[in-house]
Amino acid sequence: MREAVVGIDIGGTRVKSVLMTPDGGVLAETVHPTPDRVGDQLGELAAKAFVELTAQADEAVEVLAVGVAVPGLVDDEAGIGIWSANLGWRDLDLRGAVAAHVDVPVAVGHDVRSGLLAEHRLGAARDADNVLFVPLGTGLASAILCRGRLVTGSRWTGEIGHVVVAPDGPLCGCGQKGCLEAVSSAGAIGRRWSEATGLVGDAEEVARRAEAGEAEAVRVWQEAVDALAVMVAPIVAAVGTEMVLIGGGLVHAGDTLLEPLRAALRTRLGGRDDVVVEAAALGSRAGSLGAATIALDLVGR
Amino acid sequence: MREAVVGIDIGGTRVKSVLMTPDGGVLAETVHPTPDRVGDQLGELAAKAFVELTAQADEAVEVLAVGVAVPGLVDDEAGIGIWSANLGWRDLDLRGAVAAHVDVPVAVGHDVRSGLLAEHRLGAARDADNVLFVPLGTGLASAILCRGRLVTGSRWTGEIGHVVVAPDGPLCGCGQKGCLEAVSSAGAIGRRWSEATGLVGDAEEVARRAEAGEAEAVRVWQEAVDALAVMVAPIVAAVGTEMVLIGGGLVHAGDTLLEPLRAALRTRLGGRDDVVVEAAALGSRAGSLGAATIALDLVGR
Repeated sequence: MREAVVGIDIGGTRVKSVLMTPDGGVLAETVHPTPDRVGDQLGELAAKAFVELTAQADEAVEVLAVGVAVPGLVDDEAGIGIWSANLGWRDLDLRGAVAAHVDVPVAVGHDVRSGLLAEHRLGAARDADNVLFVPLGTGLASAILCRGRLVTGSRWTGEIGHVVVAPDGPLCGCGQKGCLEAVSSAGAIGRRWSEATGLVGDAEEVARRAEAGEAEAVRVWQEAVDALAVMVAPIVAAVGTEMVLIGGGLVHAGDTLLEPLRAALRTRLGGRDDVVVEAAALGSRAGSLGAATIALDLVGR
Repeated sequence: MREAVVGIDIGGTRVKSVLMTPDGGVLAETVHPTPDRVGDQLGELAAKAFVELTAQADEAVEVLAVGVAVPGLVDDEAGIGIWSANLGWRDLDLRGAVAAHVDVPVAVGHDVRSGLLAEHRLGAARDADNVLFVPLGTGLASAILCRGRLVTGSRWTGEIGHVVVAPDGPLCGCGQKGCLEAVSSAGAIGRRWSEATGLVGDAEEVARRAEAGEAEAVRVWQEAVDALAVMVAPIVAAVGTEMVLIGGGLVHAGDTLLEPLRAALRTRLGGRDDVVVEAAALGSRAGSLGAATIALDLVGR
């Protein structure tokens, strides 16, 4: 019987699950909309994923563990979802809720931190031990690997989205001006460009128009990149990062994103050219593969 | 016989040595000017400190280990001084040089990282496990403690002095504009105020005049504080810092420094008020007590 783990990524809009072998092979996958009050039905949801995935696999599978990755403030070790605005929970015993419905060990982790572990094990950071991971999605958080280990301080670790990077910048949903999320998130890039031009378009549209040299698109895009460099450079310098890994939907823009970011970061770092900036490899699967990775780590595989 | 360790802090202008007991008691201290080509005579220097300190102590002492703290790029584990502009060495086997002249184990560490360990063991960070330490001296570097352990990535870890925090800011000695060191270091504060006013004075003078409300002093002081917050906020958010510990001579300014820094940091962190900003406790002894601390750690005391 093939050994595998179940990884479940609870996102704001979708729950993605994966059945993964220790060498990173994906035997089955499911995607479902995130139900209302998802915090109340995590156990049922995990049990359902377990059944669906093992049924979908082509061969008999022994599930060694289940990993669950969630956004917000998370105590990875205690398995507690401390707070999530999107998912509407506070001090939720995630591990306990899932463990009551499956009879294998359960790992719980922050979605971005787990995603970084997956990139380190299976993706773009396989050869790097000092990594800063920043997925640019609707929201923004970060994760850090130093000498191959996650850096985790207080419960606020990685919450970079509402750090102010442009004091005179655009108003953020949180009420402040110039938060990183209000300038550099995928949502902000589309919104700012639409406001400036009266046209409708998302970040990918802005990327295309920036490539074509349209002035407003270039401005919004460059401001997003510069704000990201303002945030990233101090972290890189303080923790000794060697690879900045950019994830989320925006990386589809490729060098349109990475080249100006490399230039901005090099300038901010005083000309240092020893820090590489790369696109994450696992895309929208980073969360579910991350959840599977922490499950593998839990059982020592 | 009393057990103790020797801690030696090799600075750009002074070599400070201390004989310290496991509970942090200081039995003896010496301060000497840093000799030219100090890298060539580290072993002799350590042996001399060893003899001087034990002779100075009031009682018979068994020295368990020697710790050496140095600035620049340091490989703490390998005991290598990778590079120091001030002290003029490159890839210097610090541990080997000292070990050849003393017959106890030798620990080597970065001065700021070792200083943070001393603050954690003996000083202002005794009750904090998630700490960012920034001594504001002539130069600037940082150290991070997460869950009570030093965070160390690449050899560049902690080199925040030449990260650009004010793109249109003053010219730095390194040739760039707006490096943190060119705005927020003790030297920069004195220099910028002198340039603006034509008067002669150091950072302490500027602090006094800022307290008295003199316009140019207030401006230079506030710009130094704001630049520091630009640097510190991303690090705090990314690694989950709970205490920002400010060291170096500038902390003599007390609340004149700490209060505006608390305000600037709170703003940059989006109103979060869970991060405390405090003055380091060990002052100019942080390096030598830090060197002693890594010696104690090496022998498990």
